[in-house]
Amino acid sequence: MKPWQWPEDRWRNCVNRVRAGKRLTPPWPEGKRCAVALSFDVDHETNELRDGGKSIGRLSWGQYGNRRGMPRIMSLLQKYDIKASFFVPAVAANLYPDEQRAVTGEGHEIGIHGWIHELNSLLPPENERDLMMRSADMLEMITGARPVGLRTPSWDLSESTLSIAREMGLLYDSSLMADDSCYELLENLERTGVVEIPVEWIRDDAPYFMMSRIGPEDVLAIFMREFEQAYQEGEMFQLTFHPHIIGYRSRIWILEELIRAAKAKGDVWFATHRQVAEHASTAL
Amino acid sequence: MKPWQWPEDRWRNCVNRVRAGKRLTPPWPEGKRCAVALSFDVDHETNELRDGGKSIGRLSWGQYGNRRGMPRIMSLLQKYDIKASFFVPAVAANLYPDEQRAVTGEGHEIGIHGWIHELNSLLPPENERDLMMRSADMLEMITGARPVGLRTPSWDLSESTLSIAREMGLLYDSSLMADDSCYELLENLERTGVVEIPVEWIRDDAPYFMMSRIGPEDVLAIFMREFEQAYQEGEMFQLTFHPHIIGYRSRIWILEELIRAAKAKGDVWFATHRQVAEHASTAL
Amino acid sequence: MKPWQWPEDRWRNCVNRVRAGKRLTPPWPEGKRCAVALSFDVDHETNELRDGGKSIGRLSWGQYGNRRGMPRIMSLLQKYDIKASFFVPAVAANLYPDEQRAVTGEGHEIGIHGWIHELNSLLPPENERDLMMRSADMLEMITGARPVGLRTPSWDLSESTLSIAREMGLLYDSSLMADDSCYELLENLERTGVVEIPVEWIRDDAPYFMMSRIGPEDVLAIFMREFEQAYQEGEMFQLTFHPHIIGYRSRIWILEELIRAAKAKGDVWFATHRQVAEHASTAL
Amino acid sequence: MKPWQWPEDRWRNCVNRVRAGKRLTPPWPEGKRCAVALSFDVDHETNELRDGGKSIGRLSWGQYGNRRGMPRIMSLLQKYDIKASFFVPAVAANLYPDEQRAVTGEGHEIGIHGWIHELNSLLPPENERDLMMRSADMLEMITGARPVGLRTPSWDLSESTLSIAREMGLLYDSSLMADDSCYELLENLERTGVVEIPVEWIRDDAPYFMMSRIGPEDVLAIFMREFEQAYQEGEMFQLTFHPHIIGYRSRIWILEELIRAAKAKGDVWFATHRQVAEHASTAL
Repeated sequence: MKPWQWPEDRWRNCVNRVRAGKRLTPPWPEGKRCAVALSFDVDHETNELRDGGKSIGRLSWGQYGNRRGMPRIMSLLQKYDIKASFFVPAVAANLYPDEQRAVTGEGHEIGIHGWIHELNSLLPPENERDLMMRSADMLEMITGARPVGLRTPSWDLSESTLSIAREMGLLYDSSLMADDSCYELLENLERTGVVEIPVEWIRDDAPYFMMSRIGPEDVLAIFMREFEQAYQEGEMFQLTFHPHIIGYRSRIWILEELIRAAKAKGDVWFATHRQVAEHASTAL
Repeated sequence: MKPWQWPEDRWRNCVNRVRAGKRLTPPWPEGKRCAVALSFDVDHETNELRDGGKSIGRLSWGQYGNRRGMPRIMSLLQKYDIKASFFVPAVAANLYPDEQRAVTGEGHEIGIHGWIHELNSLLPPENERDLMMRSADMLEMITGARPVGLRTPSWDLSESTLSIAREMGLLYDSSLMADDSCYELLENLERTGVVEIPVEWIRDDAPYFMMSRIGPEDVLAIFMREFEQAYQEGEMFQLTFHPHIIGYRSRIWILEELIRAAKAKGDVWFATHRQVAEHASTAL
Repeated sequence: MKPWQWPEDRWRNCVNRVRAGKRLTPPWPEGKRCAVALSFDVDHETNELRDGGKSIGRLSWGQYGNRRGMPRIMSLLQKYDIKASFFVPAVAANLYPDEQRAVTGEGHEIGIHGWIHELNSLLPPENERDLMMRSADMLEMITGARPVGLRTPSWDLSESTLSIAREMGLLYDSSLMADDSCYELLENLERTGVVEIPVEWIRDDAPYFMMSRIGPEDVLAIFMREFEQAYQEGEMFQLTFHPHIIGYRSRIWILEELIRAAKAKGDVWFATHRQVAEHASTAL
Repeated sequence: MKPWQWPEDRWRNCVNRVRAGKRLTPPWPEGKRCAVALSFDVDHETNELRDGGKSIGRLSWGQYGNRRGMPRIMSLLQKYDIKASFFVPAVAANLYPDEQRAVTGEGHEIGIHGWIHELNSLLPPENERDLMMRSADMLEMITGARPVGLRTPSWDLSESTLSIAREMGLLYDSSLMADDSCYELLENLERTGVVEIPVEWIRDDAPYFMMSRIGPEDVLAIFMREFEQAYQEGEMFQLTFHPHIIGYRSRIWILEELIRAAKAKGDVWFATHRQVAEHASTAL
């Protein structure tokens, strides 16, 4: 049956599988006006491995994330004393356990990002559940920190992802786009208590530097507009970076400029995704 | 037979199925120099539903249109007291009936935009007729306003679309691109009395923010050039936006800047597509 | 056999089918320093017809070329008293004979651009020959002017195109890219006496406004750099426009700015492609 | 088996086939602060030949590299007295032997770049070995200079490429991307003594001018940021150009501006890839 032939319950069910519920915007802690939540998807070689790992060039590109991208990012976060969230495929953490131990050791958050950056929607449901649980275990085994949040690889949820997250007792997901601020996820219109920290292609480095090519100044200008308006609205400014994309000499300064501009406001709350989700969940 | 083998009547028939007739440019009402016709294609989740509705991420993106895009748009239109046209798939109106009742309640126009954003050219003719009629009925049932205009989803007309529009007594279509100003549509070289309010990818937010990526400043600059020249020529400036595209913090200001610039002229007629079509039809 | 397995004569034959010979740069007439050769590919609806003509929207876009694009172009050329070259598929000329009669009537050149914008490399050789000859006849029948030059649709030459052009006694082709200035075409390393007026994607409006999207200011800047350097080198600045691309309110000014900048030099020779080819051929 | 089903040794073997080892950054010679290594991939017609050589237009584009691109590049390098590296498919050198003799005659380096720009990963291993060896022989036969370095066409290494390079005793490869500075290549975690001079799409002209389209000013700005930061870090700034891409009137100035900016520092070491690799290898 073609979608234009569907009876109403068919498209309603589609829409209602996972949907945005209540917006969660309690006043920010300590009288702060705006939250800034930085995240880094540490894919490294898994981007290429998940597609079969044939390209030696792309694997080397992934390694760049570890050798040059991560050190530049970590150094900036230290310089400005900011805690951020790192979403890491289990295989990437396994390839670079010291890197991830340093991440958690310096007070950053580590979150689930698949086993080998696989697409959830292509997995048989029983395997998806297994991989998500093993991924969480692996990250904990390596870093000692138990993940409480999920960013699906390629922001791709299957029909089972949310219910697996609930079974695992996860606090939040950060893969969907129905709002600028946190909201409660509904599953088949039922409240879940799971917080969504929404992402957006607009606030991601990949669309500008991989899928298309625009100048870094233009990218900063877009991010700055997103931030300024979030600040005006007193809500949240969430960003997604990748060490193998933002971590280059000609791009890393974008991150520093953003941090500086936000710091200059004086009343911005830099927080990990976990902190944001915990705070947002007080409004559930 | 390959097109280069076609006899003359074959390619002539192709071209003549739907063609631009007389340009319709009576002097604008009240001594105004230029008309500005803003339109919003309120696709929300239907963009994804029409392709099968599998991607939970893209569905959430559609919901953004309702949660953040539409409120920002409505608030700007109120602030500047401007009436605009909203083209809404029946399923989107059904998902958000209050949203569309507010649209018409504040004096905006609602127009046909397919049942579930389906492509007309892929429909069997009997189904196309049925869906167009049911779409009009659904919008009227929800909002109390009977649509008089059509914007085909993805600007895609089938060979039957125009004749269905005529059968339904529609005043205008707004999906074609043969001119900058209104014109009468010809069907097989025969006058139809149906007004075309032409669209263009140049004056649409999607090519800049979805298909390609260019800076918002550049997009405003392009729109401003289109407007300024329309003003110089004393004709019409028509725009197509989407709540889930223009409705972001880093983009919504483009709409406000355009409105301000047009207001500043002092002799611009902001009108709904229906008003433009009714006015243009006096020159039929 | 894979290309890396080819014997030397196989790849040499490939390269030598059509190749650049002697560069043809006699001093410009009347002591001019630089030649500017403007060309317009008047595809109109044939762009869509050659692919089957199914899309009513794209056909309307083609008609825009006739209704708005061409009048703006013709008006600019009149204003600055410049003669240019128009390459027109026979079917487009047949659809708009008055348009093309006005083109030649105002002293512009008309050149061959296929029958229905078909790709030469996809034609059986006997059909290619027939279509090229019929195309030339049709343009002459409509305008009274016999074409002496060829621009292949989509700059696509078959292995037969050059030899057909020679058989027809054409003065020049303008579809290849081996130089910035005119050169003699060699066919299998043999001199042909046919002048090539090279084109380039860099000096074409389509890559910037159709295949990709960049701001019109950036496009002008690229064209200006090409012109300035051509002027410094004392060679030729050749451009390819399309009425349905450059003819919009937000783009047509690019053409005017270019003309103004070139006029301002005082010693630029604006010439049709035919004039350039006739002049260049004195150096054969 | 799907990658998410792979046992650990499977993805480890994938990653470890070719990997970055020790970073090689001995202090630059003569107290220089930063190295600038310019490279030119002289593909000319082979880009099209490797795909079958059917397109006469694309072949002419390749010839542009020889007729206009290379002379402009050579003239700039002479003007600023800079030595650079040219990676040349054997077939391209065979088509233009005088060009390549001039390259080595003026003190530049010539390196391996495939036989006919074939993709290594698509070759049967025995053919890859044969082609690499014949390519080196051909370059030496034409220019008298024996290549010591390799840039794989399209930066595409097969599983055999590195071991063939070792068998041939090559000093370096320049096709991978795991760092900003030179490093030793590991093969299955074993040291090879082969230096990698890493490339990057960011520092390549093709992504900006072929795959996407952005203004030349933006491209220069990106290159300048890469250079400035390399200079700050005291490391290396490596660039990849193509005569048929950078060699145009509207782009060649980018190369000159870069050279000028680097010269202006006063303590930059312009070196061929061979010189860089020889220097880096002192830190092995």
